[in-house]
Amino acid sequence: MSRFLSSEARCLFPYTPGEQPRDQQYIKLNTNESPFPPSPEVLKAVTQTETGRLYLYSDPTCAALNGAIAERYGLQSENVITGNGSDEILAFAFRAFCGKGRGAAFADITYGFYEAQAALFGLEALRVPLREDFTLNIEDYINLSATVVIANPNAPTGMTVPVTDIRRLLEHDPNRVVIVDEAYVDFGAESCVPLIQEFENLLVTQTMSKSRSLAGGRIGFALGARELIEDLNRVKYSFNPYNVNRLSLLAGAAAVKDEDYFQACCRAVQDNRTWTMKALEVRGFTVLPSSANFIFAKSDRISGGELYRKLKENGILVRWFDRDRIRDFVRVTIGSREQMVVLIDTIDRIGLRNEK
Amino acid sequence: MSRFLSSEARCLFPYTPGEQPRDQQYIKLNTNESPFPPSPEVLKAVTQTETGRLYLYSDPTCAALNGAIAERYGLQSENVITGNGSDEILAFAFRAFCGKGRGAAFADITYGFYEAQAALFGLEALRVPLREDFTLNIEDYINLSATVVIANPNAPTGMTVPVTDIRRLLEHDPNRVVIVDEAYVDFGAESCVPLIQEFENLLVTQTMSKSRSLAGGRIGFALGARELIEDLNRVKYSFNPYNVNRLSLLAGAAAVKDEDYFQACCRAVQDNRTWTMKALEVRGFTVLPSSANFIFAKSDRISGGELYRKLKENGILVRWFDRDRIRDFVRVTIGSREQMVVLIDTIDRIGLRNEK
Repeated sequence: MSRFLSSEARCLFPYTPGEQPRDQQYIKLNTNESPFPPSPEVLKAVTQTETGRLYLYSDPTCAALNGAIAERYGLQSENVITGNGSDEILAFAFRAFCGKGRGAAFADITYGFYEAQAALFGLEALRVPLREDFTLNIEDYINLSATVVIANPNAPTGMTVPVTDIRRLLEHDPNRVVIVDEAYVDFGAESCVPLIQEFENLLVTQTMSKSRSLAGGRIGFALGARELIEDLNRVKYSFNPYNVNRLSLLAGAAAVKDEDYFQACCRAVQDNRTWTMKALEVRGFTVLPSSANFIFAKSDRISGGELYRKLKENGILVRWFDRDRIRDFVRVTIGSREQMVVLIDTIDRIGLRNEK
Repeated sequence: MSRFLSSEARCLFPYTPGEQPRDQQYIKLNTNESPFPPSPEVLKAVTQTETGRLYLYSDPTCAALNGAIAERYGLQSENVITGNGSDEILAFAFRAFCGKGRGAAFADITYGFYEAQAALFGLEALRVPLREDFTLNIEDYINLSATVVIANPNAPTGMTVPVTDIRRLLEHDPNRVVIVDEAYVDFGAESCVPLIQEFENLLVTQTMSKSRSLAGGRIGFALGARELIEDLNRVKYSFNPYNVNRLSLLAGAAAVKDEDYFQACCRAVQDNRTWTMKALEVRGFTVLPSSANFIFAKSDRISGGELYRKLKENGILVRWFDRDRIRDFVRVTIGSREQMVVLIDTIDRIGLRNEK
């Protein structure tokens, strides 16, 4: 920290991304990437000819990509904004819909980035505790003045909030924006996108980093009423007008058009999730119900930190959060079946095979 | 604008990027892109194999790219941060080094984005008038408490501030950061990078959008003392940890390593600039001295707006700013020699051939 750092920046809570050690090859089950390569259509779209055009700016309006996303979700382009990952989109939303007198409210156990971004704009952050069983009680959010952010499915638990609950919130407090972060929705949860036509206070964010196998392309988007999207563009054009690069614009559009590949990848992840959950439960683990491409699991016979370390020693990276309420758990990304088999074999090898 | 927009976001000044009309093919001399494709090394780096790896996140530390940049500039990796274009880096710097009681000071005629970004963080913006001849009087910045941002060369004038002036500012006010935006420095201006070893209050930003022919790759970077870079990373990890996508990391490293190609492109732009300036001066234009890949020119015989419109009718896009002090000028990006020949022919055709 330099002596020049502003007092505002001293109050930040920088997010720690999942580790990416380079000392050896790991099976990476710690950052919720897809185990599958991007659609073959992406490889066809990112050509040498297009790489040769990188001397030209990207389209600041992201017209082709937004059009493809709009078509996929039955919306108009005016209902879509694309960003450099959904993290950027979330930052735009915090700036647009929060400020003095209107903070941000989110669960105590959720994506750690909401807290970081609230601090970025000096916003009041209201952490609303989940119930003991990690379910979200929508009544806790009724009548709050803060803008609400709900990850659905939630991270790192993988658990969902019923869309009927979110509808109740939207109806009850029409003068307050609800942001539903659907980064993991494609792995079996119900989406709030159909509610967009009905509620002008609903913003849904999604990402191509998980179900579209494009984490390294950095493409996130938000869907909502035209006026909300205009507000987000107002922030975007005050921050970085050319926020999505040329090749990602192409890759994203190709990915979103390949519905069959997308469906096949999502199904495979769900199958592997079911298999892995059963294998862990047989071994005495408690696994929270997951609708995401990861599971949150704990064992009475080993602490979360110890399990994380033993798996890492054996070449498998999972994510462990050294935080109250969730310290006993590890978050395990659902990889390919082969990776999941190695995970379970390793768990047996480190002595957690069920003795029953 | 929705009724949900925060009062902070209502005060934004969104930046208007150069137009990108799609009604016909234009000779684009309006956004200061390079007329040359990226280095052949870039095409070699962005392979199908690498595109196939987009399912994995990019390296949040940008280690390989930062290492390549550091080597090119005789610095260490700890002196480098890379962003999604230098606009993102500038935003990080505004958040890190400005706040309550410390606004941002910049010229009245300069890159319009400083104003937009200052507003993004609710900062006080101090616009310091350039002299009548558009030169910057460094004395105006001495003893200001605000963080200073100087575009060198300046946009849209193309004119430079002597490095000795910036040195004087750094020496005189060691407790205040000076940000030197060197987006256009490679086209003939003197860089402040050698001063980094000497001054812990100097941050230099650069971009690969111009001299490295990678506008569509969105790669900007800042160079400075380790502590300043740490501060910027603090903001980055509160905003978007994976801020540079995988393919741009590769493209950027390949571009920065191809010194010969870079030098050849910069020389060609300078040659074309000299040729174009002479051709315009022969035709009675006033052209400001430019060290950038654009020129700022006006004619007594046609208004800036009219020249912009006539060129557009003839298939050539240039940039015109409908603003006090510079309304008479157009900003013309230096393109290929062929493009410059068409520009001059068109100027003659629309009746601005010198009658002398």
